Amino acid sequence: MTDTIEETARFSPKFNADGLVVAAAVEHGTGRLLMIAYMNAEALQKTIDTGEAWYWSRSRGELWRKGATSGHTQKVVEMRVDCDQDAIELIVDQTGPACHTQRRSCFYRRIENGPDGAKLVFVE
Amino acid sequence: MTDTIEETARFSPKFNADGLVVAAAVEHGTGRLLMIAYMNAEALQKTIDTGEAWYWSRSRGELWRKGATSGHTQKVVEMRVDCDQDAIELIVDQTGPACHTQRRSCFYRRIENGPDGAKLVFVE
Repeated sequence: MTDTIEETARFSPKFNADGLVVAAAVEHGTGRLLMIAYMNAEALQKTIDTGEAWYWSRSRGELWRKGATSGHTQKVVEMRVDCDQDAIELIVDQTGPACHTQRRSCFYRRIENGPDGAKLVFVE
Repeated sequence: MTDTIEETARFSPKFNADGLVVAAAVEHGTGRLLMIAYMNAEALQKTIDTGEAWYWSRSRGELWRKGATSGHTQKVVEMRVDCDQDAIELIVDQTGPACHTQRRSCFYRRIENGPDGAKLVFVE
């Protein structure tokens, strides 16, 4: 049996120079991409242990349980890792909006190309 | 009208210290998360201009048209940006498998917690 990073059953997340992996939270049932955030080793372990999404806030420089202040928590239905183990997928039951702007998803603007360059169009 | 990064119609992507934004490619129609990769300004512009996904390969240190060698290209149906403009969503029609391991998605292993710590279980 090969034991490359792609084919192993060992979970050995590859943290970047800042000690982080990227995590995409996807809505359970619909597959809608809700948000992309980062986890350090502690956030990742807490997410695995508690079944709730924890992240590392790069702007605040602190560990962050999603929804700790807003109540907009994420219950983790399933976690996956990608081929080279430097990205995490969280399939979640989202309570309330995922985005701090009170929108369901952080991805609420479409990029549209035009003669004057790209601009953003608000969508749901 | 407010013109914060969250509410503006101006596209002003926030590149990190390495000059990259993270991009999640999602399968058109199903919402299945296919892969997470990175774009520099040139990859982002080429993606917008050509309607095909271009990335920056951090491991090879080069601009990379997805599928250039494998034929497994991504036709971009829609592009979105997130609230703080440091992450991109690509909704794509994927030709062939998205993953270099020949799997449909790079996220083919579930993380499962157990008494001996987390391990990976292969799923589709």
